Amino acid sequence: MSFQNPVFIPGPTNMPEEIRKACDMATIDHRSPVFGTILNPCLKNVRAVLKSRSAEIFLFPSTGTGGWECAIGNTLSPGDRVLVARNGMFSHRWIDMCQRHGLDVEIIETPWGAGLPAERYGEILKADRGHAIRAVLATHNETATGVRSDIGALRRAMDDAGHPALLLVDGVSSIASMDFRFDDWGVDIAVTGSQKGFMMPPGLAILGFSERAMAATATAKLPRTFFDIRDMARGYAANAYPYTPPVGLMNGLKLASDMLLEEGLDNVFARHHRIAEGVRAAVRAWGLGLCALSPDVQSDTVSAVRTPEGFNATDIVTHAAKVYGVALGTGLGELAGRAFRIGHLGSLTDVMMLSGLATIEMCMADLGLNIALGSGVAAAQEHYRSSHAVAALQAA
Amino acid sequence: MSFQNPVFIPGPTNMPEEIRKACDMATIDHRSPVFGTILNPCLKNVRAVLKSRSAEIFLFPSTGTGGWECAIGNTLSPGDRVLVARNGMFSHRWIDMCQRHGLDVEIIETPWGAGLPAERYGEILKADRGHAIRAVLATHNETATGVRSDIGALRRAMDDAGHPALLLVDGVSSIASMDFRFDDWGVDIAVTGSQKGFMMPPGLAILGFSERAMAATATAKLPRTFFDIRDMARGYAANAYPYTPPVGLMNGLKLASDMLLEEGLDNVFARHHRIAEGVRAAVRAWGLGLCALSPDVQSDTVSAVRTPEGFNATDIVTHAAKVYGVALGTGLGELAGRAFRIGHLGSLTDVMMLSGLATIEMCMADLGLNIALGSGVAAAQEHYRSSHAVAALQAA
Amino acid sequence: MSFQNPVFIPGPTNMPEEIRKACDMATIDHRSPVFGTILNPCLKNVRAVLKSRSAEIFLFPSTGTGGWECAIGNTLSPGDRVLVARNGMFSHRWIDMCQRHGLDVEIIETPWGAGLPAERYGEILKADRGHAIRAVLATHNETATGVRSDIGALRRAMDDAGHPALLLVDGVSSIASMDFRFDDWGVDIAVTGSQKGFMMPPGLAILGFSERAMAATATAKLPRTFFDIRDMARGYAANAYPYTPPVGLMNGLKLASDMLLEEGLDNVFARHHRIAEGVRAAVRAWGLGLCALSPDVQSDTVSAVRTPEGFNATDIVTHAAKVYGVALGTGLGELAGRAFRIGHLGSLTDVMMLSGLATIEMCMADLGLNIALGSGVAAAQEHYRSSHAVAALQAA
Amino acid sequence: MSFQNPVFIPGPTNMPEEIRKACDMATIDHRSPVFGTILNPCLKNVRAVLKSRSAEIFLFPSTGTGGWECAIGNTLSPGDRVLVARNGMFSHRWIDMCQRHGLDVEIIETPWGAGLPAERYGEILKADRGHAIRAVLATHNETATGVRSDIGALRRAMDDAGHPALLLVDGVSSIASMDFRFDDWGVDIAVTGSQKGFMMPPGLAILGFSERAMAATATAKLPRTFFDIRDMARGYAANAYPYTPPVGLMNGLKLASDMLLEEGLDNVFARHHRIAEGVRAAVRAWGLGLCALSPDVQSDTVSAVRTPEGFNATDIVTHAAKVYGVALGTGLGELAGRAFRIGHLGSLTDVMMLSGLATIEMCMADLGLNIALGSGVAAAQEHYRSSHAVAALQAA
Repeated sequence: MSFQNPVFIPGPTNMPEEIRKACDMATIDHRSPVFGTILNPCLKNVRAVLKSRSAEIFLFPSTGTGGWECAIGNTLSPGDRVLVARNGMFSHRWIDMCQRHGLDVEIIETPWGAGLPAERYGEILKADRGHAIRAVLATHNETATGVRSDIGALRRAMDDAGHPALLLVDGVSSIASMDFRFDDWGVDIAVTGSQKGFMMPPGLAILGFSERAMAATATAKLPRTFFDIRDMARGYAANAYPYTPPVGLMNGLKLASDMLLEEGLDNVFARHHRIAEGVRAAVRAWGLGLCALSPDVQSDTVSAVRTPEGFNATDIVTHAAKVYGVALGTGLGELAGRAFRIGHLGSLTDVMMLSGLATIEMCMADLGLNIALGSGVAAAQEHYRSSHAVAALQAA
Repeated sequence: MSFQNPVFIPGPTNMPEEIRKACDMATIDHRSPVFGTILNPCLKNVRAVLKSRSAEIFLFPSTGTGGWECAIGNTLSPGDRVLVARNGMFSHRWIDMCQRHGLDVEIIETPWGAGLPAERYGEILKADRGHAIRAVLATHNETATGVRSDIGALRRAMDDAGHPALLLVDGVSSIASMDFRFDDWGVDIAVTGSQKGFMMPPGLAILGFSERAMAATATAKLPRTFFDIRDMARGYAANAYPYTPPVGLMNGLKLASDMLLEEGLDNVFARHHRIAEGVRAAVRAWGLGLCALSPDVQSDTVSAVRTPEGFNATDIVTHAAKVYGVALGTGLGELAGRAFRIGHLGSLTDVMMLSGLATIEMCMADLGLNIALGSGVAAAQEHYRSSHAVAALQAA
Repeated sequence: MSFQNPVFIPGPTNMPEEIRKACDMATIDHRSPVFGTILNPCLKNVRAVLKSRSAEIFLFPSTGTGGWECAIGNTLSPGDRVLVARNGMFSHRWIDMCQRHGLDVEIIETPWGAGLPAERYGEILKADRGHAIRAVLATHNETATGVRSDIGALRRAMDDAGHPALLLVDGVSSIASMDFRFDDWGVDIAVTGSQKGFMMPPGLAILGFSERAMAATATAKLPRTFFDIRDMARGYAANAYPYTPPVGLMNGLKLASDMLLEEGLDNVFARHHRIAEGVRAAVRAWGLGLCALSPDVQSDTVSAVRTPEGFNATDIVTHAAKVYGVALGTGLGELAGRAFRIGHLGSLTDVMMLSGLATIEMCMADLGLNIALGSGVAAAQEHYRSSHAVAALQAA
Repeated sequence: MSFQNPVFIPGPTNMPEEIRKACDMATIDHRSPVFGTILNPCLKNVRAVLKSRSAEIFLFPSTGTGGWECAIGNTLSPGDRVLVARNGMFSHRWIDMCQRHGLDVEIIETPWGAGLPAERYGEILKADRGHAIRAVLATHNETATGVRSDIGALRRAMDDAGHPALLLVDGVSSIASMDFRFDDWGVDIAVTGSQKGFMMPPGLAILGFSERAMAATATAKLPRTFFDIRDMARGYAANAYPYTPPVGLMNGLKLASDMLLEEGLDNVFARHHRIAEGVRAAVRAWGLGLCALSPDVQSDTVSAVRTPEGFNATDIVTHAAKVYGVALGTGLGELAGRAFRIGHLGSLTDVMMLSGLATIEMCMADLGLNIALGSGVAAAQEHYRSSHAVAALQAA
């Protein structure tokens, strides 16, 4: 018999039951007016979650990876130059995709654990007097390293350079969990998926396009049909879809985004921050360090925890799954074996998080690490207690 | 937004998702042959869970309380004498029911926290030379105090006295979680519900009747129709039911009992024992005591934890619900305000239990009890680690 | 592979998906304040569905049969005289229950197919000068014969006789589907279940008690605990329950009653009437007759259709299930083999009903009855068309 | 209150409840070994459904349209010549996609309602001595016209011409509902989706690749990442996925394909044929004609029904949705207003189909068409009766 513990992977996340029930929808005719009553609230709500007044929102039966392809395919042409920093596995994959689509990718190599170097972006953009660079790519939250970068700073660097490149942002593991300001940051395309902050099953790529990004679709020459924003936009204008829409997932997104907005985005972000702070307190109590090189880049959705030299961090993940039935994330890329990852986003409570931390402690002890059982839990408890007091006061 | 933590009440328990899905069944015609394919495996499996070869099993759309009424209503007549010890709230309630049904109840007052006094039962039965006592009632596990009694010893006392009374046992919070031996213990009627060890929603009273109990139905004069075993037995003989059966719940019971038997009853009991031992280790680490007066009567499904004099134990329960969204049990009856209860039965993992213990620690600290955060968790972790190691070896 | 056709049995009915999802609820602590937020809307809504301003509503984890037992057990004492007409299987069963509970039942034998004889009730009550009769029992809708009786007329007969007996009404297959007026008709206890007009799974007995019925509970001497209204009332007063409540079903009832009231009871009744009229048009087109002896007693929830002499009506039911996967009701009691029953209540559309009628036609043709395929369907279509036109106009 | 009638659109189809429950899955770690236990049965079963021994199967979080893009993107290079007939809206859309991807599309214009002209394909291929044509595209079942083409004949024409082009087949609305022979027909890529014959929600593109198609991926130069078969194949080899997999949908596909294979593909096809024949009998009884120009091309999954001159066929679809709550398909492209479509695939019974036909009759009568109510229903009933007799014999 296998009973269901929460998962602590950096997505897909635990899902609230009401969202699952909304996704599990009987077949409707997606060409009937009912479809519009599902589609339009999604578009409106997602726009609000992005903190945008005017972004065009698009929903594809796909994933974050498909969302990336949609972003570049609709705005760029073969040979176009793009500028992007590589500071983890997901920025690496996006770079790889650009190269495979024939783009000319200028890569800013950045230490894994560091945030995106806005200054370096700025220098290169300033030097690009001819504006050959058509797009700047940025991964808001590196899921591999638990590093959140400062997109606002990147925008300021672009503005300082007076550079007209589009700003394409991967917000897969940040949007709906950490502050994301489409309008304030001048984001041109934001990409996310359904299975992270939206607390849904995977299967939806969710994108926001600025007016400038929409304009770029007219001249972009990369081939596309499935991901063609123009077909999608024409569909939406008629409350329709260019092919069979994933109605159940969209119905789930309608509810999920309602729930997020009802809770209040700031409360959602504070909740993620509170849980993450407890995790970080536990990591400190264990005497371990995060991959994130400085506090200002620590992610509130995922923590990548470095383990001591000579210890295979992946053993913790394997052991937790096998012995305790708990899912954690392994280290990826250059962090493989050197770090494990704790996902702490989506539908999660302080109480659930404590069970994850307690499990990690048991695993570390089982595997011979010198760890005091209960030590990380106590540190997190202390944080959750005091922050709950504040939360309770605010709610009263 | 409210996310779902596990519950730690002594029933209803957390439910495995597959069991919920089995209960959530589309309407079928309960007069069609399909009904028999649900009913009969239930009867066969429940018999096996009771460790009986021949008990007649009955399923009513009701609760454990209804099960008690079914037990006495089908075997006794107004004025009949019954013998029963009172050692907690649930034995008290059963006594109250007997009195309201006009039975002559001989009560053995027993300290709350003590097990049923088999010796005292035996003395009274021996003294009852005329066999006026028609039934002996026993609560196997007192959910109010966390006390499990020795039904085998009670049977031996009855046998020693050579007394023919029926043995009616309330196994509501023990059956399917702790060892229960219908045949070996010579139980005549066992009563339980769907919402405890069977990990289902409430709504089913589940009973086993011995041959002698079945015989008693012929002469019992307490009025009954809804709970009449004879109508029910006639129904079952024709793969039918005397009124509208709760088909969904029965479909859930079919799966739940399959799952229990597939895991193996001894493994189910060992799992409950392991989790309970962790809880008890935590309680010791906190410097608190259990209501159960001695280790041999400690229940593996519920622990009633005494709090220091002058502290209102119910505050912990209220605080846990309000601040942390976690459900615990209050003290009942004479334990109100003096103890709180931790349910640890049904669909529960070590990992989930640790989150319950961590929550209790935060509550106690919040409420000013002198408790070291993480101390009980660490004690439980230590136990779960070592016992898991054994479990893993056995599985290998 | 078996695909799910709608059922056409007179309960349990087809269930709307949203109600099933509301019933399928994760475990909550039924001793927490959340319970009151489920319980109280149920009580308020059910009262409104009964068209009562002041009835006390009670919900038991049971069935309609349990509801009957609750009604008599709480208001009567052994030896009490009750007056009841027997015009079908369900009134018969209620009589049987009364006799088994030691009541003195005066039976008005009434032809199956006829409504309850209000006049005859009146004569007997008038003759009962000493008011020995403590309760008048009436089955509002005889599910076995498809006969709806006039409870208002019965009340007038009681009033004309100036008789103080309680009026206990079985509304299992009428309430929430056909007009039921608790207050106007001076009903003292109304009994129904969850699995009919409320479109839910079986498992709830739903009762309304008048002030006079509540008063009778103080003196009634029939033994009861599980069904004791006084315990239940005490529980409700504290937002609690005397034992483990069926929370999921209650959550479903909250939604179901919301849905009924939102649609509007008159619209609900009109919908049932429209669908029933289509069924009756089909029966006429087939050249067959209903068991209901006159149009004024034809039920809008179930039609019992007589088949020609020499033909076994049950063959239609068996054939429909086996060959077409469609559930119909057999004839019960003296109608066994002479009639089959079509349930047309609950969550049903005209379109679904047409598939039931089409199936019956195929069965009758397969079994050699001289029936024109499509004939009954056409008659029903004609009715649904015209009545839908009216409905559409009203909605516009 | 809106109750759920079955839908009669040509996909998404009605879904069996057990498949929906399999799709509605709690989050698991898709990087754990559990993922392989879902993925691998899917691959094996889908291969069997395609009647192939060796096809490589791929599952994308996408739709049939994405499947098309995957097919061409992985095997072709910009400027490659492809040959394809246009006989309906879906072949038209595929052609459009090819053109937008820079392929050189040679189009065989074919009357809507006719099957793909294998002979004409053959002539062109024979004339293509230099083998400039790299791929032959074919839509097995034109969902817009209800026309099924003979892919075996197309293969023979290719073989007669000795032409090495790849054969890419759109089987979106045929696979798992009508006979499809990947190996026998020498198909190189087959494309379908989850929401038709597999009776699932939309969201999965399902593809089979032959060894030759796999080889072509090495040289194909169209850019691709999300749809890159090579990444996907590498993932599968490690029981993994190149990005977040739609685990719930895959779990549903595992069950759906199990169900299809357990029923037996020939039985599945026979069931679709039987239901379709009943629909066609009804259409004849109404005096209307199908778009399919000859019986040999009539589709068993969708019927496009031509309405009389001067009548707007779309009114039937709108009226059915609005007045009766039933979903039908409109005419597409040049059939807009001239035909409506009845979907009869997936999880559908004869009984459900009859309700669809009865609804259409009511709509036609409401809208003034000269139609005898019940006439089409009767014709379908007659067919279902006789064919059920055969089915019953086979099952015995």
